[in-house]
Amino acid sequence: MQLPDDLILREATGTILLVILDGLGGLPDPELGVTELESAHTPHLDALARRSSLGMLLPVAPGITPGSGPAHLALFGYDPKDYVVGRGALSALGVGFDLVMGDVAVRLNLATLDEAGLITDRRAGRPRDDEGSRIVNLLRSGISLGEEAEFFLIHEKEHRVVLVLRGEGLGADISDTDPQATRVPQLELRLLNSSSAKTARIMGQFLAQAHELIRDEDQISGLLARGFARYDGLPSLKDRFGLDALAVARYPMYRGVARLVGMEVAGVPSSDEEAVALMEDQFGKADFYFIHFKAPDARGEDGDFDAKVAAIEAVDAVIPRLVALSPDVLVITGDHSTPARMGGHSWHHVPLLLAAEETRPTGDSFSERECGSGDLGRLEAKYLMSLMLAHAGRLGKFGA
Amino acid sequence: MQLPDDLILREATGTILLVILDGLGGLPDPELGVTELESAHTPHLDALARRSSLGMLLPVAPGITPGSGPAHLALFGYDPKDYVVGRGALSALGVGFDLVMGDVAVRLNLATLDEAGLITDRRAGRPRDDEGSRIVNLLRSGISLGEEAEFFLIHEKEHRVVLVLRGEGLGADISDTDPQATRVPQLELRLLNSSSAKTARIMGQFLAQAHELIRDEDQISGLLARGFARYDGLPSLKDRFGLDALAVARYPMYRGVARLVGMEVAGVPSSDEEAVALMEDQFGKADFYFIHFKAPDARGEDGDFDAKVAAIEAVDAVIPRLVALSPDVLVITGDHSTPARMGGHSWHHVPLLLAAEETRPTGDSFSERECGSGDLGRLEAKYLMSLMLAHAGRLGKFGA
Repeated sequence: MQLPDDLILREATGTILLVILDGLGGLPDPELGVTELESAHTPHLDALARRSSLGMLLPVAPGITPGSGPAHLALFGYDPKDYVVGRGALSALGVGFDLVMGDVAVRLNLATLDEAGLITDRRAGRPRDDEGSRIVNLLRSGISLGEEAEFFLIHEKEHRVVLVLRGEGLGADISDTDPQATRVPQLELRLLNSSSAKTARIMGQFLAQAHELIRDEDQISGLLARGFARYDGLPSLKDRFGLDALAVARYPMYRGVARLVGMEVAGVPSSDEEAVALMEDQFGKADFYFIHFKAPDARGEDGDFDAKVAAIEAVDAVIPRLVALSPDVLVITGDHSTPARMGGHSWHHVPLLLAAEETRPTGDSFSERECGSGDLGRLEAKYLMSLMLAHAGRLGKFGA
Repeated sequence: MQLPDDLILREATGTILLVILDGLGGLPDPELGVTELESAHTPHLDALARRSSLGMLLPVAPGITPGSGPAHLALFGYDPKDYVVGRGALSALGVGFDLVMGDVAVRLNLATLDEAGLITDRRAGRPRDDEGSRIVNLLRSGISLGEEAEFFLIHEKEHRVVLVLRGEGLGADISDTDPQATRVPQLELRLLNSSSAKTARIMGQFLAQAHELIRDEDQISGLLARGFARYDGLPSLKDRFGLDALAVARYPMYRGVARLVGMEVAGVPSSDEEAVALMEDQFGKADFYFIHFKAPDARGEDGDFDAKVAAIEAVDAVIPRLVALSPDVLVITGDHSTPARMGGHSWHHVPLLLAAEETRPTGDSFSERECGSGDLGRLEAKYLMSLMLAHAGRLGKFGA
């Protein structure tokens, strides 16, 4: 299946609110026989389900477990197989760094090397943030790349650092130095395409100077580079779908991917409560709104079934406030499944609820089971956008 | 929908057992109102279904009835629209002939021609094997193609013969001489692409000499060529999915298609009982196992509803022995439907059962109806492999 090459957009005022419960989908608990969502007491979601079209989203393809970046791109209507965004760029966007076209970003791990240069800890024991910041400052002031490129070094959290190189003619076809293993040396930088030769040379200088500066440190004595990515931007939601879009998300990653598709990011809420209040405050300014709730995924990653149930119930409690904003289309789904039983992302379908004027309700509650027999069927996540646009009155007729 | 270009394979030890009931899918008997599978008493399959994810496989595309070769390729993760393997090559592999790259294989029918050269029986009355062998030996010793090519002639069964040409620069872009009709003459060999000119010339010599040798025979007086295929091999399951694979199948065709994708073929069982025993004996040697049961298809082709029910029940009886092997992923499905009411292959969806750790069970029994509302939805058969790999822990995350 594929969409027509050009969607026929209509002038319309219908608003869309996309509510993401990260990692929403689950698996049945072996004793209870029901999933996290099925077990949760969610009166507001259930009431909404009874007047919604239900379905199941396939994040990428059967059996494919997505990372958060590709999973969200799909929800925004960008096929993640066509729009590949490197880890470095997502991380930079995630911390709110203002990437410009042509920047090359790369994730750096603060790591521990032994005296022979072998990696003993790829995450340097997950250093405290003040220790990580100290090293980042040391590198920032000690490294000089001359005239060829500017660099920006951002301490994300713990061992995670983002390096952005800015200059003329940079490329990202360079292999990782992170071998993703310990007791081995770091990998050599390898040039994968001659168009990235300048960047490889600069990056070699950067790493050499960096290692000289930190070689005698106990905890953080190495840097591992992973996921070189050149930022060329993506066509925006405005360009592709005519949507002015606004995002509210507590975590940098999700603000980053929203910015990547041209959404305005409305502040940095420090709690889900603040996120909802911010959405209430901003509602009315845009056509498309995205609000992101992280807790179901985080508790699923913890492998804690009951905590994930509670996280879903906490979102249920704020649903009336989101419904009260009266978007023309209200969609509630996840980016992927994070079953507590698996303690991580999975490939399983994700429950989808679409509340709007023109729905075919089939279910009594919001659950994997009810969504599995819903009117929307099983749908690749990348097709959600055209469905939302249609329900918002924003799509014209295909053909005469 | 399509998979990412490169699946991210993980080092893992999860084993997969794929059990194919050929022609499994059926249609409801007009009087009973249930299909062959729904009518069958299958306590073991039903018990398995209650802890499995269920779904329906679409062999190729809506309305497309597959042959056995493409249908199995799809189950092994090879899009049959991309991996086209001619009947000749499949037949040669099927009889265990050791094709080498560049060979051209073609299926020959032993046929009966009348004095005017019109076809009176495309299968020469399905000759006894000793009669077929006698003719094949006659051709083998009587035909000479000179220096340009070697030829191998293999009597498959009854009227079915495989010819393999081996030499430099052979091609298979040659049309069939089998008109698939009687009371008409055989078709002229037509060259479809100049790269096959040498082969067309050799093939012309072969057929001319052959017809000279058998023209006065009563029963087998002609040869009809069908399905020229050049064998260029396929990338193996090992190369594509990192799987050491092993096949157990009673019938040559299925051993052939297994060999085509690099499976080791474990012997030639002469009954389903022997096939199961062979699988028990071999289990532990590979990552991926394929066992093939032919009877449901054969009885469906006979148009015998009750016999197909019995064939399904016979497989049900050996399911506990396959479950006892404890593969990490156990899949039970068919390559296509063969409804007894139709007496042949059809395009209908095929019931699919996937038993593993991380399933979402929804059904009480293994049937078209329960599978039709299962969690896996309706899935092109070519996506089964990524789903099996995911459940075996063999796929990494897509994107950051």
